Amino acid sequence: MATPSESRVLDTARLESVLTEFARVRDWDQYHNPRNLILALTGEVGELAEIFQWRTDAEAATIMEGEKAEHVRQEVADVFLYLMRLAMVLGIDLDAAVRNKIELNAKKYPPKLEC
Amino acid sequence: MATPSESRVLDTARLESVLTEFARVRDWDQYHNPRNLILALTGEVGELAEIFQWRTDAEAATIMEGEKAEHVRQEVADVFLYLMRLAMVLGIDLDAAVRNKIELNAKKYPPKLEC
Amino acid sequence: MATPSESRVLDTARLESVLTEFARVRDWDQYHNPRNLILALTGEVGELAEIFQWRTDAEAATIMEGEKAEHVRQEVADVFLYLMRLAMVLGIDLDAAVRNKIELNAKKYPPKLEC
Amino acid sequence: MATPSESRVLDTARLESVLTEFARVRDWDQYHNPRNLILALTGEVGELAEIFQWRTDAEAATIMEGEKAEHVRQEVADVFLYLMRLAMVLGIDLDAAVRNKIELNAKKYPPKLEC
Repeated sequence: MATPSESRVLDTARLESVLTEFARVRDWDQYHNPRNLILALTGEVGELAEIFQWRTDAEAATIMEGEKAEHVRQEVADVFLYLMRLAMVLGIDLDAAVRNKIELNAKKYPPKLEC
Repeated sequence: MATPSESRVLDTARLESVLTEFARVRDWDQYHNPRNLILALTGEVGELAEIFQWRTDAEAATIMEGEKAEHVRQEVADVFLYLMRLAMVLGIDLDAAVRNKIELNAKKYPPKLEC
Repeated sequence: MATPSESRVLDTARLESVLTEFARVRDWDQYHNPRNLILALTGEVGELAEIFQWRTDAEAATIMEGEKAEHVRQEVADVFLYLMRLAMVLGIDLDAAVRNKIELNAKKYPPKLEC
Repeated sequence: MATPSESRVLDTARLESVLTEFARVRDWDQYHNPRNLILALTGEVGELAEIFQWRTDAEAATIMEGEKAEHVRQEVADVFLYLMRLAMVLGIDLDAAVRNKIELNAKKYPPKLEC
Protein backbone atom coordinates (compact mmCIF):
# COMPACT_ATOMS: atom_id res chain seq x y z
CA MET A 1 0.00 0.00 0.00
CA ALA A 2 1.31 3.43 -0.85
CA THR A 3 1.97 5.41 2.30
CA PRO A 4 -0.44 8.32 2.73
CA SER A 5 2.40 10.83 2.91
CA GLU A 6 3.01 10.47 -0.80
CA SER A 7 -0.27 11.97 -1.94
CA ARG A 8 -3.21 13.91 -0.57
CA VAL A 9 -5.83 12.07 1.46
CA LEU A 10 -8.10 15.03 2.07
CA ASP A 11 -9.25 17.85 -0.15
CA THR A 12 -10.56 20.87 1.75
CA ALA A 13 -9.77 23.62 -0.76
CA ARG A 14 -13.39 24.32 -1.70
CA LEU A 15 -14.54 24.18 1.93
CA GLU A 16 -11.86 26.68 2.96
CA SER A 17 -13.06 29.02 0.26
CA VAL A 18 -16.69 28.70 1.38
CA LEU A 19 -15.80 29.26 5.05
CA THR A 20 -13.57 32.24 4.31
CA GLU A 21 -16.44 33.92 2.47
CA PHE A 22 -18.96 32.87 5.13
CA ALA A 23 -16.94 34.52 7.90
CA ARG A 24 -16.11 37.58 5.78
CA VAL A 25 -19.70 38.58 4.98
CA ARG A 26 -20.70 38.12 8.63
CA ASP A 27 -17.71 40.04 9.99
CA TRP A 28 -16.80 36.99 12.10
CA ASP A 29 -13.02 36.98 11.59
CA GLN A 30 -12.69 39.19 14.64
CA TYR A 31 -14.04 36.32 16.80
CA HIS A 32 -12.21 33.45 15.11
CA ASN A 33 -8.95 33.48 17.02
CA PRO A 34 -7.34 30.23 18.26
CA ARG A 35 -8.48 30.28 21.90
CA ASN A 36 -12.04 31.27 20.99
CA LEU A 37 -12.22 28.47 18.44
CA ILE A 38 -10.89 25.90 20.92
CA LEU A 39 -13.58 26.96 23.41
CA ALA A 40 -16.17 26.68 20.61
CA LEU A 41 -14.80 23.25 19.68
CA THR A 42 -15.10 22.20 23.33
CA GLY A 43 -18.70 23.38 23.30
CA GLU A 44 -19.56 21.32 20.23
CA VAL A 45 -17.80 18.18 21.48
CA GLY A 46 -19.83 18.66 24.66
CA GLU A 47 -23.08 18.75 22.67
CA LEU A 48 -22.05 15.55 20.89
CA ALA A 49 -21.18 13.86 24.20
CA GLU A 50 -24.53 14.92 25.65
CA ILE A 51 -26.43 13.00 22.96
CA PHE A 52 -24.65 9.79 23.96
CA GLN A 53 -24.32 10.27 27.72
CA TRP A 54 -27.18 8.03 28.92
CA ARG A 55 -27.08 5.49 26.09
CA THR A 56 -25.53 2.04 26.29
CA ASP A 57 -22.96 1.02 23.69
CA ALA A 58 -25.67 -1.10 22.06
CA GLU A 59 -28.04 1.89 21.87
CA ALA A 60 -25.24 4.11 20.56
CA ALA A 61 -24.48 1.62 17.77
CA THR A 62 -27.97 2.07 16.27
CA ILE A 63 -28.45 5.77 16.98
CA MET A 64 -28.42 6.67 13.27
CA GLU A 65 -31.53 4.56 12.72
CA GLY A 66 -33.55 6.65 15.16
CA GLU A 67 -34.85 10.17 15.65
CA LYS A 68 -31.50 11.54 16.90
CA ALA A 69 -29.72 10.85 13.58
CA GLU A 70 -30.04 14.37 12.20
CA HIS A 71 -28.96 15.88 15.54
CA VAL A 72 -25.83 13.68 15.55
CA ARG A 73 -25.02 14.62 11.94
CA GLN A 74 -25.30 18.33 12.81
CA GLU A 75 -23.09 18.07 15.88
CA VAL A 76 -20.42 16.08 14.01
CA ALA A 77 -20.50 18.79 11.31
CA ASP A 78 -20.23 21.54 13.95
CA VAL A 79 -17.16 19.93 15.53
CA PHE A 80 -15.58 19.62 12.10
CA LEU A 81 -16.40 23.21 11.10
CA TYR A 82 -14.77 24.73 14.18
CA LEU A 83 -11.76 22.43 13.81
CA MET A 84 -11.42 23.47 10.16
CA ARG A 85 -11.64 27.16 11.11
CA LEU A 86 -8.99 26.58 13.79
CA ALA A 87 -6.69 24.95 11.22
CA MET A 88 -7.34 27.88 8.87
CA VAL A 89 -6.55 30.66 11.37
CA LEU A 90 -3.44 28.78 12.52
CA GLY A 91 -2.30 28.31 8.91
CA ILE A 92 -2.28 24.52 9.29
CA ASP A 93 -2.48 22.41 6.11
CA LEU A 94 -4.92 19.82 7.46
CA ASP A 95 -4.18 17.32 4.70
CA ALA A 96 -0.44 17.41 5.38
CA ALA A 97 -0.96 17.34 9.17
CA VAL A 98 -3.26 14.31 8.88
CA ARG A 99 -0.91 12.41 6.55
CA ASN A 100 2.03 13.13 8.84
CA LYS A 101 0.09 11.96 11.92
CA ILE A 102 -0.96 8.74 10.21
CA GLU A 103 2.72 8.09 9.40
CA LEU A 104 3.70 8.72 13.03
CA ASN A 105 0.91 6.44 14.28
CA ALA A 106 1.97 3.74 11.82
CA LYS A 107 5.46 3.73 13.36
CA LYS A 108 4.15 3.94 16.94
CA TYR A 109 1.60 1.14 16.49
CA PRO A 110 2.90 -1.54 14.10
CA PRO A 111 0.20 -3.73 12.52
CA LYS A 112 -0.87 -6.81 14.47
CA LEU A 113 -2.20 -8.74 11.49
CA GLU A 114 -0.66 -9.99 8.30
CA CYS A 115 -1.60 -7.75 5.42
CA MET B 1 -22.08 32.44 -5.05
CA ALA B 2 -23.24 28.88 -5.60
CA THR B 3 -24.57 27.42 -2.37
CA PRO B 4 -22.33 24.67 -0.99
CA SER B 5 -25.20 22.17 -0.99
CA GLU B 6 -25.00 21.90 -4.75
CA SER B 7 -21.59 20.28 -4.93
CA ARG B 8 -19.03 18.65 -2.66
CA VAL B 9 -16.87 20.86 -0.44
CA LEU B 10 -14.84 18.06 1.09
CA ASP B 11 -13.30 14.93 -0.35
CA THR B 12 -12.47 12.29 2.25
CA ALA B 13 -12.75 9.14 0.11
CA ARG B 14 -9.04 8.37 0.09
CA LEU B 15 -8.67 9.12 3.80
CA GLU B 16 -11.53 6.78 4.64
CA SER B 17 -9.85 4.04 2.67
CA VAL B 18 -6.53 4.62 4.46
CA LEU B 19 -8.18 4.64 7.91
CA THR B 20 -10.25 1.54 7.21
CA GLU B 21 -7.10 -0.37 6.31
CA PHE B 22 -5.17 1.15 9.23
CA ALA B 23 -7.76 -0.08 11.75
CA ARG B 24 -8.18 -3.46 10.04
CA VAL B 25 -4.52 -4.49 10.18
CA ARG B 26 -4.32 -3.43 13.83
CA ASP B 27 -7.56 -5.16 14.84
CA TRP B 28 -8.83 -1.83 16.16
CA ASP B 29 -12.41 -1.98 14.88
CA GLN B 30 -13.44 -3.65 18.12
CA TYR B 31 -12.51 -0.44 20.00
CA HIS B 32 -13.90 2.08 17.53
CA ASN B 33 -17.50 2.30 18.69
CA PRO B 34 -19.27 5.68 19.00
CA ARG B 35 -18.92 6.24 22.75
CA ASN B 36 -15.27 5.18 22.80
CA LEU B 37 -14.51 7.54 19.92
CA ILE B 38 -16.29 10.46 21.62
CA LEU B 39 -14.21 9.86 24.75
CA ALA B 40 -11.08 9.72 22.56
CA LEU B 41 -12.16 12.94 20.82
CA THR B 42 -12.63 14.57 24.23
CA GLY B 43 -9.13 13.46 25.16
CA GLU B 44 -7.60 15.02 22.05
CA VAL B 45 -9.52 18.29 22.37
CA GLY B 46 -8.22 18.37 25.94
CA GLU B 47 -4.63 18.01 24.72
CA LEU B 48 -5.19 20.87 22.27
CA ALA B 49 -6.72 23.05 24.99
CA GLU B 50 -3.77 22.30 27.27
CA ILE B 51 -1.31 23.79 24.78
CA PHE B 52 -3.21 27.08 24.84
CA GLN B 53 -4.34 27.23 28.47
CA TRP B 54 -1.76 29.65 29.86
CA ARG B 55 -1.19 31.71 26.72
CA THR B 56 -2.69 35.10 26.02
CA ASP B 57 -4.64 35.66 22.80
CA ALA B 58 -1.58 37.52 21.46
CA GLU B 59 0.70 34.59 22.25
CA ALA B 60 -1.81 32.13 20.75
CA ALA B 61 -1.91 34.13 17.51
CA THR B 62 1.80 33.51 16.88
CA ILE B 63 2.07 29.98 18.27
CA MET B 64 2.79 28.49 14.83
CA GLU B 65 6.00 30.55 14.63
CA GLY B 66 7.41 28.89 17.74
CA GLU B 67 8.51 25.52 19.04
CA LYS B 68 4.96 24.33 19.77
CA ALA B 69 3.93 24.45 16.08
CA GLU B 70 4.47 20.74 15.40
CA HIS B 71 2.68 19.79 18.62
CA VAL B 72 -0.33 21.91 17.62
CA ARG B 73 -0.38 20.38 14.12
CA GLN B 74 -0.35 16.87 15.60
CA GLU B 75 -3.17 17.58 18.06
CA VAL B 76 -5.35 19.19 15.37
CA ALA B 77 -4.74 16.08 13.23
CA ASP B 78 -5.62 13.79 16.16
CA VAL B 79 -8.92 15.58 16.78
CA PHE B 80 -9.73 15.31 13.08
CA LEU B 81 -8.78 11.62 12.88
CA TYR B 82 -11.05 10.58 15.75
CA LEU B 83 -13.89 12.73 14.37
CA MET B 84 -13.45 11.11 10.96
CA ARG B 85 -13.50 7.63 12.51
CA LEU B 86 -16.65 8.59 14.45
CA ALA B 87 -18.33 9.74 11.23
CA MET B 88 -17.23 6.48 9.58
CA VAL B 89 -18.58 4.15 12.27
CA LEU B 90 -21.85 6.12 12.41
CA GLY B 91 -22.18 5.97 8.62
CA ILE B 92 -22.22 9.78 8.36
CA ASP B 93 -21.32 11.35 5.00
CA LEU B 94 -19.17 14.16 6.40
CA ASP B 95 -19.26 16.17 3.18
CA ALA B 96 -23.07 16.12 3.06
CA ALA B 97 -23.36 16.83 6.80
CA VAL B 98 -21.00 19.80 6.52
CA ARG B 99 -22.76 21.25 3.47
CA ASN B 100 -26.13 20.87 5.18
CA LYS B 101 -24.86 22.54 8.35
CA ILE B 102 -23.42 25.47 6.40
CA GLU B 103 -26.84 25.93 4.75
CA LEU B 104 -28.58 25.88 8.14
CA ASN B 105 -26.07 28.36 9.56
CA ALA B 106 -26.54 30.62 6.52
CA LYS B 107 -30.28 30.83 7.27
CA LYS B 108 -29.75 31.22 11.02
CA TYR B 109 -27.12 33.95 10.68
CA PRO B 110 -27.83 36.16 7.65
CA PRO B 111 -24.81 38.11 6.34
CA LYS B 112 -24.13 41.50 7.92
CA LEU B 113 -22.14 42.93 5.04
CA GLU B 114 -22.90 43.62 1.41
CA CYS B 115 -21.34 40.99 -0.79
CA MET C 1 1.58 26.57 57.28
CA ALA C 2 0.27 23.10 58.02
CA THR C 3 0.29 20.93 54.92
CA PRO C 4 -3.21 20.12 53.67
CA SER C 5 -2.59 16.39 53.94
CA GLU C 6 -2.80 16.58 57.71
CA SER C 7 -6.47 17.54 57.88
CA ARG C 8 -9.54 17.75 55.68
CA VAL C 9 -9.86 20.67 53.25
CA LEU C 10 -13.26 19.70 51.88
CA ASP C 11 -16.40 18.41 53.51
CA THR C 12 -18.80 16.71 51.10
CA ALA C 13 -20.53 14.28 53.49
CA ARG C 14 -23.88 16.06 53.48
CA LEU C 15 -23.78 16.59 49.70
CA GLU C 16 -23.10 12.90 49.12
CA SER C 17 -26.09 12.03 51.27
CA VAL C 18 -28.33 14.46 49.34
CA LEU C 19 -27.13 13.15 45.93
CA THR C 20 -27.51 9.50 46.94
CA GLU C 21 -31.13 10.13 47.91
CA PHE C 22 -31.72 12.29 44.80
CA ALA C 23 -30.58 9.51 42.46
CA ARG C 24 -32.38 6.79 44.45
CA VAL C 25 -35.85 8.31 44.30
CA ARG C 26 -35.44 8.98 40.56
CA ASP C 27 -34.07 5.51 39.80
CA TRP C 28 -31.00 7.15 38.25
CA ASP C 29 -28.30 4.85 39.63
CA GLN C 30 -28.67 2.65 36.56
CA TYR C 31 -27.40 5.57 34.41
CA HIS C 32 -24.64 6.80 36.71
CA ASN C 33 -21.76 4.58 35.64
CA PRO C 34 -18.26 6.02 35.10
CA ARG C 35 -18.27 6.39 31.30
CA ASN C 36 -21.76 7.90 31.25
CA LEU C 37 -20.76 10.41 33.91
CA ILE C 38 -17.58 11.38 32.05
CA LEU C 39 -19.65 12.01 28.91
CA ALA C 40 -22.08 14.06 31.02
CA LEU C 41 -19.15 15.97 32.54
CA THR C 42 -17.84 16.66 29.03
CA GLY C 43 -21.28 17.98 28.09
CA GLU C 44 -21.37 20.39 31.03
CA VAL C 45 -17.80 21.64 30.51
CA GLY C 46 -18.86 22.25 26.91
CA GLU C 47 -21.81 24.37 28.05
CA LEU C 48 -19.48 26.37 30.28
CA ALA C 49 -16.99 26.86 27.44
CA GLU C 50 -19.80 28.00 25.15
CA ILE C 51 -20.67 30.91 27.45
CA PHE C 52 -17.11 32.21 27.19
CA GLN C 53 -16.25 31.32 23.59
CA TRP C 54 -16.72 34.73 21.93
CA ARG C 55 -15.74 36.89 24.91
CA THR C 56 -12.39 38.61 25.38
CA ASP C 57 -10.45 38.01 28.60
CA ALA C 58 -11.56 41.49 29.70
CA GLU C 59 -15.23 40.66 29.08
CA ALA C 60 -14.83 37.30 30.82
CA ALA C 61 -13.38 39.00 33.91
CA THR C 62 -16.61 40.93 34.48
CA ILE C 63 -19.12 38.31 33.38
CA MET C 64 -20.54 37.88 36.89
CA GLU C 65 -21.66 41.53 36.86
CA GLY C 66 -23.90 40.93 33.83
CA GLU C 67 -26.95 38.97 32.76
CA LYS C 68 -25.01 35.72 32.23
CA ALA C 69 -24.03 35.44 35.92
CA GLU C 70 -26.79 33.01 36.89
CA HIS C 71 -26.12 30.87 33.80
CA VAL C 72 -22.42 30.65 34.70
CA ARG C 73 -23.26 29.71 38.31
CA GLN C 74 -25.56 26.93 37.10
CA GLU C 75 -23.02 25.49 34.67
CA VAL C 76 -20.24 25.53 37.28
CA ALA C 77 -22.63 23.71 39.64
CA ASP C 78 -23.50 21.17 36.93
CA VAL C 79 -19.84 20.39 36.26
CA PHE C 80 -19.28 19.93 39.99
CA LEU C 81 -22.37 17.74 40.46
CA TYR C 82 -21.35 15.27 37.74
CA LEU C 83 -17.77 15.21 39.02
CA MET C 84 -19.05 14.52 42.54
CA ARG C 85 -21.27 11.68 41.25
CA LEU C 86 -18.29 10.27 39.35
CA ALA C 87 -16.18 10.33 42.51
CA MET C 88 -19.05 8.67 44.39
CA VAL C 89 -19.58 5.80 41.92
CA LEU C 90 -15.81 5.23 41.72
CA GLY C 91 -15.54 5.20 45.52
CA ILE C 92 -13.08 8.10 45.49
CA ASP C 93 -12.67 10.13 48.69
CA LEU C 94 -12.57 13.54 47.01
CA ASP C 95 -11.12 15.27 50.07
CA ALA C 96 -8.22 12.81 50.30
CA ALA C 97 -7.65 12.88 46.52
CA VAL C 98 -7.55 16.69 46.52
CA ARG C 99 -5.18 16.89 49.48
CA ASN C 100 -2.89 14.32 47.91
CA LYS C 101 -2.87 16.16 44.57
CA ILE C 102 -2.07 19.48 46.26
CA GLU C 103 0.89 17.78 47.97
CA LEU C 104 2.11 16.37 44.64
CA ASN C 105 1.73 19.76 42.97
CA ALA C 106 3.61 21.42 45.83
CA LYS C 107 6.60 19.14 45.17
CA LYS C 108 6.37 19.49 41.40
CA TYR C 109 6.08 23.28 41.45
CA PRO C 110 8.13 24.76 44.32
CA PRO C 111 7.10 28.27 45.38
CA LYS C 112 8.73 31.14 43.52
CA LEU C 113 8.19 33.76 46.19
CA GLU C 114 9.32 34.08 49.78
CA CYS C 115 6.47 33.23 52.10
CA MET D 1 -36.24 15.41 53.97
CA ALA D 2 -34.99 18.92 54.51
CA THR D 3 -34.31 20.63 51.20
CA PRO D 4 -30.62 21.29 50.64
CA SER D 5 -31.20 25.01 50.16
CA GLU D 6 -31.78 25.42 53.89
CA SER D 7 -28.24 24.58 54.97
CA ARG D 8 -24.79 24.07 53.54
CA VAL D 9 -24.01 20.82 51.72
CA LEU D 10 -20.39 21.60 50.96
CA ASP D 11 -17.63 23.20 52.97
CA THR D 12 -14.76 24.53 50.89
CA ALA D 13 -13.53 27.34 53.16
CA ARG D 14 -10.27 25.63 54.13
CA LEU D 15 -9.59 24.51 50.56
CA GLU D 16 -10.07 28.06 49.26
CA SER D 17 -7.59 29.30 51.81
CA VAL D 18 -5.03 26.64 50.82
CA LEU D 19 -5.46 27.36 47.08
CA THR D 20 -5.25 31.12 47.55
CA GLU D 21 -1.92 30.71 49.33
CA PHE D 22 -0.72 28.10 46.83
CA ALA D 23 -1.28 30.45 43.88
CA ARG D 24 0.09 33.47 45.74
CA VAL D 25 3.50 31.99 46.56
CA ARG D 26 3.88 30.73 42.98
CA ASP D 27 2.76 34.01 41.41
CA TRP D 28 0.06 32.10 39.52
CA ASP D 29 -2.84 34.54 39.93
CA GLN D 30 -1.79 36.20 36.67
CA TYR D 31 -2.64 32.97 34.81
CA HIS D 32 -5.83 32.09 36.66
CA ASN D 33 -8.39 34.05 34.65
CA PRO D 34 -11.73 32.50 33.63
CA ARG D 35 -10.91 31.53 30.03
CA ASN D 36 -7.52 30.07 30.95
CA LEU D 37 -9.11 28.01 33.71
CA ILE D 38 -11.85 26.71 31.39
CA LEU D 39 -9.18 25.61 28.91
CA ALA D 40 -7.27 23.96 31.79
CA LEU D 41 -10.50 22.28 32.95
CA THR D 42 -11.05 21.00 29.39
CA GLY D 43 -7.52 19.61 29.42
CA GLU D 44 -8.08 17.72 32.67
CA VAL D 45 -11.50 16.33 31.63
CA GLY D 46 -9.72 15.16 28.48
CA GLU D 47 -7.10 13.32 30.55
CA LEU D 48 -9.87 11.65 32.54
CA ALA D 49 -11.73 10.65 29.34
CA GLU D 50 -8.52 9.23 27.92
CA ILE D 51 -8.20 6.74 30.79
CA PHE D 52 -11.66 5.36 30.00
CA GLN D 53 -11.72 5.63 26.19
CA TRP D 54 -10.96 2.01 25.26
CA ARG D 55 -12.58 0.32 28.27
CA THR D 56 -15.98 -1.34 28.29
CA ASP D 57 -18.55 -0.28 30.90
CA ALA D 58 -17.75 -3.51 32.77
CA GLU D 59 -14.02 -2.71 32.79
CA ALA D 60 -14.72 0.88 33.84
CA ALA D 61 -16.82 -0.33 36.79
CA THR D 62 -13.81 -2.09 38.35
CA ILE D 63 -11.09 0.37 37.37
CA MET D 64 -10.43 1.37 40.99
CA GLU D 65 -9.38 -2.20 41.79
CA GLY D 66 -6.55 -2.06 39.25
CA GLU D 67 -3.32 -0.25 38.54
CA LYS D 68 -5.06 2.85 37.09
CA ALA D 69 -6.78 3.70 40.40
CA GLU D 70 -4.24 6.30 41.52
CA HIS D 71 -4.21 7.91 38.04
CA VAL D 72 -8.02 8.20 38.11
CA ARG D 73 -7.94 9.73 41.60
CA GLN D 74 -5.38 12.31 40.48
CA GLU D 75 -7.34 13.29 37.37
CA VAL D 76 -10.60 13.63 39.30
CA ALA D 77 -8.73 15.85 41.78
CA ASP D 78 -7.25 17.93 38.94
CA VAL D 79 -10.69 18.54 37.40
CA PHE D 80 -12.01 19.58 40.80
CA LEU D 81 -9.04 21.87 41.55
CA TYR D 82 -9.42 23.85 38.31
CA LEU D 83 -13.20 24.05 38.78
CA MET D 84 -12.67 25.33 42.33
CA ARG D 85 -10.18 27.94 41.11
CA LEU D 86 -12.66 28.99 38.41
CA ALA D 87 -15.40 29.40 41.03
CA MET D 88 -12.96 31.39 43.15
CA VAL D 89 -11.86 33.83 40.44
CA LEU D 90 -15.50 34.31 39.36
CA GLY D 91 -16.57 34.94 42.95
CA ILE D 92 -19.02 32.02 42.87
CA ASP D 93 -20.13 30.53 46.20
CA LEU D 94 -19.93 26.89 45.11
CA ASP D 95 -22.02 25.65 48.04
CA ALA D 96 -24.86 28.07 47.25
CA ALA D 97 -24.63 27.38 43.50
CA VAL D 98 -24.78 23.62 44.09
CA ARG D 99 -27.72 23.84 46.49
CA ASN D 100 -29.60 26.10 44.08
CA LYS D 101 -28.94 23.73 41.14
CA ILE D 102 -30.15 20.72 43.13
CA GLU D 103 -33.36 22.63 43.89
CA LEU D 104 -33.84 23.47 40.20
CA ASN D 105 -33.17 19.84 39.21
CA ALA D 106 -35.64 18.64 41.84
CA LYS D 107 -38.39 20.74 40.22
CA LYS D 108 -37.35 19.78 36.68
CA TYR D 109 -37.15 16.05 37.40
CA PRO D 110 -39.80 15.02 39.98
CA PRO D 111 -39.07 11.74 41.79
CA LYS D 112 -40.31 8.56 40.13
CA LEU D 113 -40.40 6.44 43.27
CA GLU D 114 -42.25 6.67 46.55
CA CYS D 115 -39.96 7.91 49.27
